[in-house]
Amino acid sequence: MEAYLDNSATTPICPEAFNAVTEALTSNWGNPSSLYRKGIEAEAVRESARRSLAGRLGCESGEVFFTSGGTESNNIAVLGAAEAQKRFGRRIIVSSVEHASIDEAVKFLETRGFEIIRLPVDSQGRVPEDRIFRAVNQGTILVSLMAVNNEVGTLQPLEAVRQAVVSSRSRALIHCDAVQAFGKIDVKPSAMGVDLMSVSAHKIHGPKGAGALYVRGGLKKEKNGVRVLPVMYGGTQESSLRPGTEPMPAIAGFGAAVNALPPVSASLERINLLRQRLVCGLETVDGIEFNSPPDALPYVTNISVVGYESENLINFLSERGIYVSSGSACGKGKKSRVLKNMGLGDDRVSSALRISLSRYTAPEHIDMLIYGLRDARNFLRTKK
Amino acid sequence: MEAYLDNSATTPICPEAFNAVTEALTSNWGNPSSLYRKGIEAEAVRESARRSLAGRLGCESGEVFFTSGGTESNNIAVLGAAEAQKRFGRRIIVSSVEHASIDEAVKFLETRGFEIIRLPVDSQGRVPEDRIFRAVNQGTILVSLMAVNNEVGTLQPLEAVRQAVVSSRSRALIHCDAVQAFGKIDVKPSAMGVDLMSVSAHKIHGPKGAGALYVRGGLKKEKNGVRVLPVMYGGTQESSLRPGTEPMPAIAGFGAAVNALPPVSASLERINLLRQRLVCGLETVDGIEFNSPPDALPYVTNISVVGYESENLINFLSERGIYVSSGSACGKGKKSRVLKNMGLGDDRVSSALRISLSRYTAPEHIDMLIYGLRDARNFLRTKK
Repeated sequence: MEAYLDNSATTPICPEAFNAVTEALTSNWGNPSSLYRKGIEAEAVRESARRSLAGRLGCESGEVFFTSGGTESNNIAVLGAAEAQKRFGRRIIVSSVEHASIDEAVKFLETRGFEIIRLPVDSQGRVPEDRIFRAVNQGTILVSLMAVNNEVGTLQPLEAVRQAVVSSRSRALIHCDAVQAFGKIDVKPSAMGVDLMSVSAHKIHGPKGAGALYVRGGLKKEKNGVRVLPVMYGGTQESSLRPGTEPMPAIAGFGAAVNALPPVSASLERINLLRQRLVCGLETVDGIEFNSPPDALPYVTNISVVGYESENLINFLSERGIYVSSGSACGKGKKSRVLKNMGLGDDRVSSALRISLSRYTAPEHIDMLIYGLRDARNFLRTKK
Repeated sequence: MEAYLDNSATTPICPEAFNAVTEALTSNWGNPSSLYRKGIEAEAVRESARRSLAGRLGCESGEVFFTSGGTESNNIAVLGAAEAQKRFGRRIIVSSVEHASIDEAVKFLETRGFEIIRLPVDSQGRVPEDRIFRAVNQGTILVSLMAVNNEVGTLQPLEAVRQAVVSSRSRALIHCDAVQAFGKIDVKPSAMGVDLMSVSAHKIHGPKGAGALYVRGGLKKEKNGVRVLPVMYGGTQESSLRPGTEPMPAIAGFGAAVNALPPVSASLERINLLRQRLVCGLETVDGIEFNSPPDALPYVTNISVVGYESENLINFLSERGIYVSSGSACGKGKKSRVLKNMGLGDDRVSSALRISLSRYTAPEHIDMLIYGLRDARNFLRTKK
């Protein structure tokens, strides 16, 4: 048996999504831009997937735009909103614990004369609300804050962002990277007062290669629509916000994965039990420190095995078919910026492990990890 | 029986690619950036696909970068090269018959102060060589010319581009959109003197959602590498030229589709026979005009059924399970810019049909089209 406990990096595909992908490959494989029946059938698959997304996000279909994944959704949101909004100001506010696709995108914007405010986080990984209120001013054009942190599971105070933007009387758009939250907690952009929201298929048991960006009001064409510019140019697919032949198998799988999502509360209940088992087990292992706050989303538990290098632990566990990570997969083994910005020392950062669960996680997987960690402490040499 | 004759828009997946996609979904589904065994297995699949591409392109693996498709490859090439090269000049040269993903990308660059030279084409859809030599000057930073036109099949004189760039002593990079050529004729960038080349999976019986960009020398890190900047930012995937979790099922399918490609000459021989059958058949239908030149790549035949609207013809044929298009799928029914720029009149442009073949095209499909067109002429009313 294998214990896959890195569901924040990617998830196994659910049978519903798998079937939708193969169907899109073998039956509805036309180009959805084509005018004949085979194209119209593919278009129908795409629109059905769009309705599934819209249903889950509590928005209109016309507000959902397909992309190639979370990184692209985040880039269109940040680069596209900055470009569209630059006549109103230059200030963009993000947290210091955003995903690389936000962090690197604003770094690029900084070289183009935008003023980037990176809000610090407390020891729990959370942006203090007063910092948000102090940062948002009239020249602010965009605030981008993730719903749930990908490395430690901390929930961010998005309601404070909405309040701060309203009271500042700025024209700032609010973007929420909900890649790690979607399907795990309710993320309804209109209820959250969010203008732009990123989600991804492969984090919810869909295939890699599709994501979506929610745009309030469905682009500038609508009266109350938000203005966001594309990062690529070409055909008129996705209202030209994302040109190019659509990744139809992945989009079809995305829609099916959304349809297959159990209600958030039912999943959370089960994950909470698994998390309790995990925490109790970890407490029996010597030298474990918890990096995730107690009120983190229970899908993600970040720990440090102080004295042991993350990479050695990962390799040791991998040999036993137990898969955990040291942090973001997109960081590929780099030391965690998130943990550092939470104020953790080098010893904690260099020995960090992220354990992330999904609806396919079984209690036995948790137990395998606990035994594995005990063995690791016995067999691995500590750092000198 | 259906007759799918729109293979320039998209192609049915080959069994080899289908199997690779499902394998990537069910077996090697890890995140290739993950450090444990499951991640390393996925990474191996990705690298194997990269080697397949490199083998076919006659280049090094390190020169192949995966993207989400042809549109993205073209955008990275054009936007990324313009940005990297702007200190050397502002002139960018393209043909007037490029795909929308080139045409719209340079339109954007025009708004950013780049000088865009759009070379006209002759009545065959070909850029005259002397126009290329006259256009390329010392301040030219990029020439982008497609290998084969997607609407009429015309081959472009890329060798003249190389000569013109060399003799101008400019630092211009040469980009070739080989999306419609790859797998059909030999496109070896180094032999062609091309610095950047775009290819796409779903035009060669691979899945939608993956493409690749060849970059001579493999980016700036290599001594002789070409400098191209990304259009998106995030993780370090694809050497940061294309961040974000890779669309692994599509990449695996791309690699398998490349491996399954028959030798170019064997395919061409068969397609030439089908083309002869097509042309002979079309000549028996009244009122057909040929828009493709006689020496076009035989995979693509563009005709006009003068007096009949393309859309009506497409719908009429579609009812009979015969699928052809009026031009680029990315143009979705818009009147063809390519045919207009070839100097064809409105009557020819508005009645155009593109018939595009693949190795799965059977002689019976051609015959169905011919009968369908005869019926169309009998049953459809001509334009007033």
